[in-house]
Amino acid sequence: MAGSYQIPSETTKNLAVQMKRANELGIVEYPLERPGKGECQVQVKCTGICGSDVHLWKDGRIGIFDAKKPIVLGHESMGVVTALGEGVTEFKVGDRVAIEPGIPCSECEQCMGGHYNLCPDVLFKSTPPYDGLLANYITHPARWLYKLPDSISDEEGALLEPLSVAIAALERVNARFGSSLLICGCGPIGLIVLAVAKAIGMGPIIITDVQESRLKWAKEMGATHAHLIEKGLTDVQVAEDIRRILGEAPEYSLECTGVDTSFRVAIMATRNGGTCCMVGVGKNDQLLPVNNFAMREVDIKGLFRYHHTWPKAIRLLDSGALNIKQLVTHKFEFKDALKAFEVASDYSQGSIKVQITN
Amino acid sequence: MAGSYQIPSETTKNLAVQMKRANELGIVEYPLERPGKGECQVQVKCTGICGSDVHLWKDGRIGIFDAKKPIVLGHESMGVVTALGEGVTEFKVGDRVAIEPGIPCSECEQCMGGHYNLCPDVLFKSTPPYDGLLANYITHPARWLYKLPDSISDEEGALLEPLSVAIAALERVNARFGSSLLICGCGPIGLIVLAVAKAIGMGPIIITDVQESRLKWAKEMGATHAHLIEKGLTDVQVAEDIRRILGEAPEYSLECTGVDTSFRVAIMATRNGGTCCMVGVGKNDQLLPVNNFAMREVDIKGLFRYHHTWPKAIRLLDSGALNIKQLVTHKFEFKDALKAFEVASDYSQGSIKVQITN
Amino acid sequence: MAGSYQIPSETTKNLAVQMKRANELGIVEYPLERPGKGECQVQVKCTGICGSDVHLWKDGRIGIFDAKKPIVLGHESMGVVTALGEGVTEFKVGDRVAIEPGIPCSECEQCMGGHYNLCPDVLFKSTPPYDGLLANYITHPARWLYKLPDSISDEEGALLEPLSVAIAALERVNARFGSSLLICGCGPIGLIVLAVAKAIGMGPIIITDVQESRLKWAKEMGATHAHLIEKGLTDVQVAEDIRRILGEAPEYSLECTGVDTSFRVAIMATRNGGTCCMVGVGKNDQLLPVNNFAMREVDIKGLFRYHHTWPKAIRLLDSGALNIKQLVTHKFEFKDALKAFEVASDYSQGSIKVQITN
Amino acid sequence: MAGSYQIPSETTKNLAVQMKRANELGIVEYPLERPGKGECQVQVKCTGICGSDVHLWKDGRIGIFDAKKPIVLGHESMGVVTALGEGVTEFKVGDRVAIEPGIPCSECEQCMGGHYNLCPDVLFKSTPPYDGLLANYITHPARWLYKLPDSISDEEGALLEPLSVAIAALERVNARFGSSLLICGCGPIGLIVLAVAKAIGMGPIIITDVQESRLKWAKEMGATHAHLIEKGLTDVQVAEDIRRILGEAPEYSLECTGVDTSFRVAIMATRNGGTCCMVGVGKNDQLLPVNNFAMREVDIKGLFRYHHTWPKAIRLLDSGALNIKQLVTHKFEFKDALKAFEVASDYSQGSIKVQITN
Repeated sequence: MAGSYQIPSETTKNLAVQMKRANELGIVEYPLERPGKGECQVQVKCTGICGSDVHLWKDGRIGIFDAKKPIVLGHESMGVVTALGEGVTEFKVGDRVAIEPGIPCSECEQCMGGHYNLCPDVLFKSTPPYDGLLANYITHPARWLYKLPDSISDEEGALLEPLSVAIAALERVNARFGSSLLICGCGPIGLIVLAVAKAIGMGPIIITDVQESRLKWAKEMGATHAHLIEKGLTDVQVAEDIRRILGEAPEYSLECTGVDTSFRVAIMATRNGGTCCMVGVGKNDQLLPVNNFAMREVDIKGLFRYHHTWPKAIRLLDSGALNIKQLVTHKFEFKDALKAFEVASDYSQGSIKVQITN
Repeated sequence: MAGSYQIPSETTKNLAVQMKRANELGIVEYPLERPGKGECQVQVKCTGICGSDVHLWKDGRIGIFDAKKPIVLGHESMGVVTALGEGVTEFKVGDRVAIEPGIPCSECEQCMGGHYNLCPDVLFKSTPPYDGLLANYITHPARWLYKLPDSISDEEGALLEPLSVAIAALERVNARFGSSLLICGCGPIGLIVLAVAKAIGMGPIIITDVQESRLKWAKEMGATHAHLIEKGLTDVQVAEDIRRILGEAPEYSLECTGVDTSFRVAIMATRNGGTCCMVGVGKNDQLLPVNNFAMREVDIKGLFRYHHTWPKAIRLLDSGALNIKQLVTHKFEFKDALKAFEVASDYSQGSIKVQITN
Repeated sequence: MAGSYQIPSETTKNLAVQMKRANELGIVEYPLERPGKGECQVQVKCTGICGSDVHLWKDGRIGIFDAKKPIVLGHESMGVVTALGEGVTEFKVGDRVAIEPGIPCSECEQCMGGHYNLCPDVLFKSTPPYDGLLANYITHPARWLYKLPDSISDEEGALLEPLSVAIAALERVNARFGSSLLICGCGPIGLIVLAVAKAIGMGPIIITDVQESRLKWAKEMGATHAHLIEKGLTDVQVAEDIRRILGEAPEYSLECTGVDTSFRVAIMATRNGGTCCMVGVGKNDQLLPVNNFAMREVDIKGLFRYHHTWPKAIRLLDSGALNIKQLVTHKFEFKDALKAFEVASDYSQGSIKVQITN
Repeated sequence: MAGSYQIPSETTKNLAVQMKRANELGIVEYPLERPGKGECQVQVKCTGICGSDVHLWKDGRIGIFDAKKPIVLGHESMGVVTALGEGVTEFKVGDRVAIEPGIPCSECEQCMGGHYNLCPDVLFKSTPPYDGLLANYITHPARWLYKLPDSISDEEGALLEPLSVAIAALERVNARFGSSLLICGCGPIGLIVLAVAKAIGMGPIIITDVQESRLKWAKEMGATHAHLIEKGLTDVQVAEDIRRILGEAPEYSLECTGVDTSFRVAIMATRNGGTCCMVGVGKNDQLLPVNNFAMREVDIKGLFRYHHTWPKAIRLLDSGALNIKQLVTHKFEFKDALKAFEVASDYSQGSIKVQITN
């Protein structure tokens, strides 16, 4: 399946979705770059909107990264190669590719040690001060592009980035098949974690949320238990409920909401000697039950992006083991990108993943 | 689903399938024991025949274990609890259970270190000098029985032992999802390894055999590639063919035939830094390509039984991720046990797994 | 070196140091037991006082364990075998032995999985409701006694328990030679961790305390840097000071004080991708810098006792690599046990480890 | 300690020790290169002769690497920086540096995965077709130079390469403190492995050789047991002797001779569940006791060079834990390099490590 694409001429106008300042988004004209040495030029065909894109738009910052100038959004993208830079032999014009948005230095201790996600000099597209991928054409190092097999659609190709987060989360806790899992939260990441966990033979799996409507997604996707957390319960009570419903204490717990009380519950629920990871992002300082996890030797971890996940994500999709297409609830054309952001940011519209196509 | 069972009376005759001496098999009367402290009495309902049972029957010995006296065969069994010994509270009469046939000492360095399969004092049923499980009634420690959920049939319950071997093989190489795998051999273990590998998200998977008929099973079970090894090729050639067909060198290789040339091929095919495990049992001394695996840092391992696999096997089956029922190609009643052994030992009959029901 | 010992007669009076109720300690008469099956009777020769013994004496409780009845203290003991129970063949009367005070069940998932420290049914001597080892004679399972070579003195034999904690802490973070280490606190555990870390080739090592006098111990024992933490600094400032003095961020951090601000500092100082473990015991709930450790993928752990440490501790001492004798600052005879506890509980007396001999 | 050095002028003659063809060695004039971008020019001050240098000289080849043209030898070198290429900021002229001789690509799967020793595109100095380091001046990427502290002498700096091999061998088997070790062979690598093993708290350690004179070195360096292997014994007998003398089966075994019977012994001696690594290089195909290692789950590994070892080696030396200077038995000036090679290749002269200074 060759993707449709247009090789840009010198006069082709390149458009991009830009956060101009906090709360102000626009489609702007953007330089059309020739690929440098080792780079490809890519026509971006499909891009998903991440929660962090919405935050950046609304707040003009994300975490510790303050956008001091206008910035192009988007880092969940796939496209088609439209030009090759010097020395690029592994791709040809017309290849459909997924884009890994972070470009590590490849030389430091973290990069050479197998943890390029911790590279202090990484250039991550859409994290200030670097522009993102929501443009008609971008350039990117060939090293961080991945050829997509025909079995993977454009929509799925643009899901590889959140899929990478889910894979990284499961690898971060060293999740093993035949083991029980707690997932806190039915947002896009929680649901993709669920899909991957099932595809890699984990179970039983309990997933929680405070909204019944979101739990329906989890049930349809095959969660062993989809548990509504009712208001007014203590963290101890919720942790006990989780263990009782699951029939055991989960070996692994992945907190995917970023809410501190949810992290406390996840820690307390985890079985002795198990592992609990904060995948969501929340408050800097949180009151954690230290003796609870220390005396039971539950390991506490957090996640920062991913490393080595794209090839595995492509294999999982290619093998047919993973069905996550249905999570794309809304698609918009590039010209309607602002509308796409509105839907993505409005919880009442019930979107899971909103994508922008080109 | 309560399994049908008969609580034996004092006059109930207990029958067992016994290897009397090399090449002589018989159904004999066997003592009906009351369960001791911490034990259950189990009416055995279904038992699979393992290649080692056939060897023991034909040769009167298996590996270094010489049967100096008649011995009851069988170690792939499930049944129903018919009596409880002192102190047993986790089971009740009528419970359907799978039987883990090895009983480790629980006290030694290996047992306490998490590797009870390496316990020097293990009592393994059907390995000389210990009687096996192919009897109407046996007694067994409750610690090494596992309750079967209704979702798991008797046939599947009796497949838990070879399924344990497959799981142990994949754990021995620390197999990870999204990684490539070579399986050498389409016997029962090779095919069950294939089924598990697919259920835990591995891929692409190439499986090999020298018989086209066996490869058909692998294709139906979803192997990415089922490769016929033709006669007359060198080990280097076969290894190169495997890499070419797979599209890469496999990260993990599991040799499931016990043939030395096949082990050489598996080693040579494995990617740099990967792991190759001898799951089959073959010659004591084998000519291995040492510089090949040493200079490429391919880890070489072997497998001895399993540890901690039953709970995982039950979870995988219970979750519906694993479909191995079809591997039971032949079933015989207990009274026809000798016929069952004839079929299991006659390759021309094309059996994969032969089971004996009660 | 045969230790001196007296085989008790039927009329031998057995004395023990008992916490009668909070704040009341006494030397009382205690039953002289014959060793049961698999047990040895041991004349206790030397016992160290642990901070938890002092807590138990002062508060009548330790952590979640409330002593509802009088309880014998002490769990850092060595002695000489004075009688053998049925079936004990690995010891003979007169053998000098170290005593591992916890007796796990050997059957549960944690015990069989290699983590007997997490056994929910462990009988730990001196943790309520179980009596400790500070008696003239005790009985103990032979499985949890270790023969002492002549190279290890009685004082060192009684240091094997805190040495086990130090070894367990370093194993908990998977500490590797040639790597940097932060130790927070120069109490007995911090200093023994320092001694072990040096003996296993770790370095550079920075150790901190708020008392100059304690840091002198660390300097004499070869810490690369012994850093006084001055009052009034923020946790960020202290963490930065540690990194600057060490010349890098520590790969591993072991918090040995139990103070929450010290744990925060340890977390913040640890290098990206490193590991920080709470070895001390402090407040149940603590305000931790979650984004700090999550975004940098620093693993957070706690320690609960030890597993498989006695043989390693004996080997380290026997090889001469480890010199910790000097940490025994005070020794008292059994009849002066109450005085020993007074010294151990009075910080102004500058004791590191107080031992009671018999 | 600033090392003495001469900054070369345009007319400075650069000499190198070159293998011209098999069995022919000479000191030749060699181009004096200016450092390129990211490189340093280094005046080589001290270089050790490795067994592979001797092989290359004698045979014109080493393993699979055939020198089709004259080649400069040497890869165990340290020196002083004499010029900086563009962009180099981490060094200054006059810095004493150790040289890691392999330059991996930094981009491939192996490099990014933490195993740059397995990089298929590595440029390893002195492995054909690449020239080695035995010249007056060489250029090298700053990324693969390491600043030497004053505490490390020139001789020790030139020992960092074989020390790296020893560290890599111990890391390859994941050697842990407080564990037993078998080292086969008292050559330079075996003896340096011994020194490191002691410095990282391993023990008891048994080392073997067929020459009494070499075992004396091991005794002086603190081996727990230095065992002479007498002729005429079977591999089973030698393995049993090792276990008996050590008092247990070694947890780890490192074969440092490359002799196949020694590898068989090492495998058989290793305890159940332990690890045995071929560090020496020997015959391509070797008859190995497969059932012996498979049924006992002994992992079999080989070693290819090293990764991430230089910083650890420097820390171990800097901490004073490691004393290996005495292994330099002979030193020659650069002009006497051919004599140095004669001594290194003549076993009767009893050299352990021969170094060439400049």
